[in-house]
Amino acid sequence: MDSPASPGAPHPETTRPAGVVARLQAALPGRVDVSPTALEAARADRSGHRSPAVPLAVVHAASVADVQAVCRLAHETRTPLVTRGAGTGLAGGAVAGAGEVVLDVMGMDRILEVSPADRVAVVEPGILNGALNAALAEHGLWWAPDPASKDISTVGGNIAMNAGGLLCAKYGVTREAVLGLDVVLADGTLMRLGHRTVKGVTGFDLTALMIGSEGTLGVIVGATLSLRPAVRGTQVTLGGFFPDVVAGAAAAEAVTNAGHVPALMELMDEVTLAAVRAYAGPERGAALPESGAFLLVQADGAGAEEDGAAMADLMRAHGGDVTVTADHAEGEALLALRRTAFPALERLGTPLVEDVAVPRSRMAEMFARIRDIEARTGIPIPTTAHAGDGNLHPILLFGAAAQVGGAAEDATSIPADVWEAAGELFRAGLELGGTLTGEHGVGLLKRAFLRDELGDAQHALQAKIKAVFDPHGILNPGKVFTP
Amino acid sequence: MDSPASPGAPHPETTRPAGVVARLQAALPGRVDVSPTALEAARADRSGHRSPAVPLAVVHAASVADVQAVCRLAHETRTPLVTRGAGTGLAGGAVAGAGEVVLDVMGMDRILEVSPADRVAVVEPGILNGALNAALAEHGLWWAPDPASKDISTVGGNIAMNAGGLLCAKYGVTREAVLGLDVVLADGTLMRLGHRTVKGVTGFDLTALMIGSEGTLGVIVGATLSLRPAVRGTQVTLGGFFPDVVAGAAAAEAVTNAGHVPALMELMDEVTLAAVRAYAGPERGAALPESGAFLLVQADGAGAEEDGAAMADLMRAHGGDVTVTADHAEGEALLALRRTAFPALERLGTPLVEDVAVPRSRMAEMFARIRDIEARTGIPIPTTAHAGDGNLHPILLFGAAAQVGGAAEDATSIPADVWEAAGELFRAGLELGGTLTGEHGVGLLKRAFLRDELGDAQHALQAKIKAVFDPHGILNPGKVFTP
Repeated sequence: MDSPASPGAPHPETTRPAGVVARLQAALPGRVDVSPTALEAARADRSGHRSPAVPLAVVHAASVADVQAVCRLAHETRTPLVTRGAGTGLAGGAVAGAGEVVLDVMGMDRILEVSPADRVAVVEPGILNGALNAALAEHGLWWAPDPASKDISTVGGNIAMNAGGLLCAKYGVTREAVLGLDVVLADGTLMRLGHRTVKGVTGFDLTALMIGSEGTLGVIVGATLSLRPAVRGTQVTLGGFFPDVVAGAAAAEAVTNAGHVPALMELMDEVTLAAVRAYAGPERGAALPESGAFLLVQADGAGAEEDGAAMADLMRAHGGDVTVTADHAEGEALLALRRTAFPALERLGTPLVEDVAVPRSRMAEMFARIRDIEARTGIPIPTTAHAGDGNLHPILLFGAAAQVGGAAEDATSIPADVWEAAGELFRAGLELGGTLTGEHGVGLLKRAFLRDELGDAQHALQAKIKAVFDPHGILNPGKVFTP
Repeated sequence: MDSPASPGAPHPETTRPAGVVARLQAALPGRVDVSPTALEAARADRSGHRSPAVPLAVVHAASVADVQAVCRLAHETRTPLVTRGAGTGLAGGAVAGAGEVVLDVMGMDRILEVSPADRVAVVEPGILNGALNAALAEHGLWWAPDPASKDISTVGGNIAMNAGGLLCAKYGVTREAVLGLDVVLADGTLMRLGHRTVKGVTGFDLTALMIGSEGTLGVIVGATLSLRPAVRGTQVTLGGFFPDVVAGAAAAEAVTNAGHVPALMELMDEVTLAAVRAYAGPERGAALPESGAFLLVQADGAGAEEDGAAMADLMRAHGGDVTVTADHAEGEALLALRRTAFPALERLGTPLVEDVAVPRSRMAEMFARIRDIEARTGIPIPTTAHAGDGNLHPILLFGAAAQVGGAAEDATSIPADVWEAAGELFRAGLELGGTLTGEHGVGLLKRAFLRDELGDAQHALQAKIKAVFDPHGILNPGKVFTP
């Protein structure tokens, strides 16, 4: 998708007002793609959701000026615009449908600057998180946001979603790693938000407002990122096996209560552990026990060995069978197994991936609620958790096994009973003082529940802010907010 | 100011529409203060600025309901409202004048909850930062925002200004330490923003938007704070003496470039160092050299000793005469000297405290620019810097020495040439890729320069956002934005 596409034959499903696409083609020659392949691809993301029809066109933007031209035209013609990076979202936020134009920013993937002295990088939105971090490593630097998708997701997408990941309890979410943003507004205005400095308090923090706005307030065309020095010292990895997930959650809570801040703390429940073990095969899977739950903890930086030993003691005191390794490769192998949880579970059925986050102290309760919903509905809900920050991913399984690595073709219409169970999950999370999405965003899949969390007054206030940025409502309409 | 005041005799300068104050008194019996002392106090903050006339009244709010009642009445009658905590601001943000009502939230100072398991505290806005941290220490916890005023400034004020301080390069600014806010909007609506969880991405990040909004978007009536475990291990303090401040700045840059993240790194220039030495007296001042500049560096947590030794080597390689101590009391004594910089300089003249921040790599250049402005204008501009994050405090001295610890009575009208020099400072900061205020806020004193930094388009956008929250413009009018 990096090279400009030639206009192809129109997709049969397209009902395209010739005017808009023709004007786009005239304004951005060679960049407007109406090939069936491109239009089909833009209907889906990694959530399993697929829009009912293909969009009008995909514009492969190569510059800020391209983005501005598209926005101006869309603004003038009231054409809905869906900004899209790698399409790895899990909430349908970048899914495009009938009458919409896709603004593909994957071609804007340059690293414009790396400054070790200022500890910043200036990048375009389409660069992959993993590619950026590979380049930064040469400078002994690191951009901390660490979504599980980091090798295939873009920095712009990470910012648009305020991506989380495995390291947030210690290293923060994406919002803490962005100093400034260049944004094209709906009407084509380019605006430079934020600062290049560590501190800066001039006016409202529009950088923070833009982070996590899921393409509804503007198009991110550049970012000034706050970097960290690469972590030094030993990395200590603890693998803890517990009889059940509630025991594992209690151990995780004990680690937090004792004042530790592990780099990561990941909890897999019984069904997930079994699926990961099967997926890994006999050799790699032998590192995992045959039953029970698994708590993976990592300490890094100075003092990691002492910290690791103390956390291992706490886990043992909570009934865990704990192995400790300071071997980097062994630790990474355990972590790699954790990262296969999603594809491993996709073998068992079509997944609806949820993302509820609760206060750390309520995590064990949330697991109990999930078990209860599972028992009442009969829907399997294997669950993993970022146990350091209380973010759980209950995965509701239904229908046939999905194709591993591809969008779930048969997930277009999620069965009513699965939705109902998901609704129960959200409500349980809210009752425990949590939120319906910790890191995946609202997109299409959670918008029906947003008002329940925000309340009517805040929901209305947010809609008014949206209108300030995008008076005609052309930016990612129908996402986040119910139309 | 904690106890409700009885209505006193009206202040002679007050030109008060009897209606508003009478209605406030009827709605909030015993809480409406029109005593000359209270009205006089509300005219000033710690910036040295004093409004030309006293406000109408000071309402000592004791509850969320009180705040809502005041907002509803102000909204209805279009009465300007200035929210005020401890009045320690340095930009005139909480200074109240003719026709305005002051909403004093110092009486709302309870800690509602401390949860070690969730690592959060829920507090009212009037609690002092220092008092909160004293209470948290009993739980082994810590709220990281560390403005120099922490013993006398409120948590609500820290949030309203997005306060910085000495520890930001390592521990972040206030924005990174707040999970959620309860806010009363201009029309009296109570809104609960944000989350209790580490992660949460439901809708726009209005918590972040509110942080640093300087009382112009809403009244903060409650906050859910993100806590850290108290730092463990040794604290190592380095005192580095350099022939001049440019050499000190170069050493600070070398420390950052080598990948260190000191807890704090404070640079005092020659004039500041001499003033601090004189202020301390012969005994305490003996810890400081008789001339040159001073770079104070502290490492904490695991690995502090190794880090400290490595940083000391770097400083020596850059011409520093460095002492290293792992003795807590010795380190704190040096830090206490640093904290006297402001009162020490007040002895030399009336201060206009500036707050420019530049990218770390431009700090030495900014010092050179300040020297140049000083030489051309003849105005002394002693400067300290948070050298870990590039935030400088040039202090323009004019007129007679101020009363130490009190508002500078004679600073009401800052001389034109001082303003002009301040304007040159701001422009130099912007030219170096910086911002006109790193942590003090815009308030009254920097509003004339805000548009230069934001540009017209962003300035207009920010004003529209303000209007969404506060359609009648009653919240802190004239602050941040030029009327």
